[in-house]
Amino acid sequence: MADSSAPTRVMMAVNESSLKGYPHPSISCRSAFDWMLSKLVRSNTDGFHLLFLHVQVPDEDGFDDMDSIYASPTDFQSMKQRDKIRGIHLLEYFVNECHRLGIKCEAWTKHGDPKEVICHEVKRVQPDLLVVGSRGLGPFQR
Amino acid sequence: MADSSAPTRVMMAVNESSLKGYPHPSISCRSAFDWMLSKLVRSNTDGFHLLFLHVQVPDEDGFDDMDSIYASPTDFQSMKQRDKIRGIHLLEYFVNECHRLGIKCEAWTKHGDPKEVICHEVKRVQPDLLVVGSRGLGPFQR
Repeated sequence: MADSSAPTRVMMAVNESSLKGYPHPSISCRSAFDWMLSKLVRSNTDGFHLLFLHVQVPDEDGFDDMDSIYASPTDFQSMKQRDKIRGIHLLEYFVNECHRLGIKCEAWTKHGDPKEVICHEVKRVQPDLLVVGSRGLGPFQR
Repeated sequence: MADSSAPTRVMMAVNESSLKGYPHPSISCRSAFDWMLSKLVRSNTDGFHLLFLHVQVPDEDGFDDMDSIYASPTDFQSMKQRDKIRGIHLLEYFVNECHRLGIKCEAWTKHGDPKEVICHEVKRVQPDLLVVGSRGLGPFQR
């Protein structure tokens, strides 16, 4: 078998829970993560390298729908900053979990439309596998 | 991690090569099989249980397009018999490979439209993962 070869690189797109508060991973992406650990990685922690992508949607909280006439550039700046911090906290959850389990990982954020960004990043990063959360449709796709 | 738990059940739909001769697996499903071994199973042979499904398409060699006025029921019977044997030989390839590598497996054939049969069998068998061959589109889907 191939455990002397390069580890299996699994890319995972993660997003926040829609519940307000501290940025928690969504239920679907946490399920996908748990599924991946128990069904793919299993005890073979050295054989896998996990890649976490969080796509930040520019209008995530409907900012563009609001009257923004009185918004100053500073407001935009501080919102971007806040979103960035939330994204980092989200990724921190997965990186910490991997660290605890001894699985190598990388994590990064990108801005844009999730579908487009995920496809773009898959082409760029060329993972062996892409895991995305789903809402009861099954978490798996390549 | 979860290696004390039930093995990961991976179902794989396999088909024959379109090249004539002894029933060989198609290039795409052999690639999918190799990919699964090297990227999912890796050295963790105890952690996986492979399920091979071969769907036999009733008109696979265009029999219905032929003039069948003179075909006797025996002809049908012997053709069904021949198809069945080809299917069994095909599955034998995968079962032998698994046996050689020490991976538990099961294999069976069904008749019908591959898409419908595969979906039906996935619902019935409830694998953790479905692997299907593809023609350059990437071998993975759940």
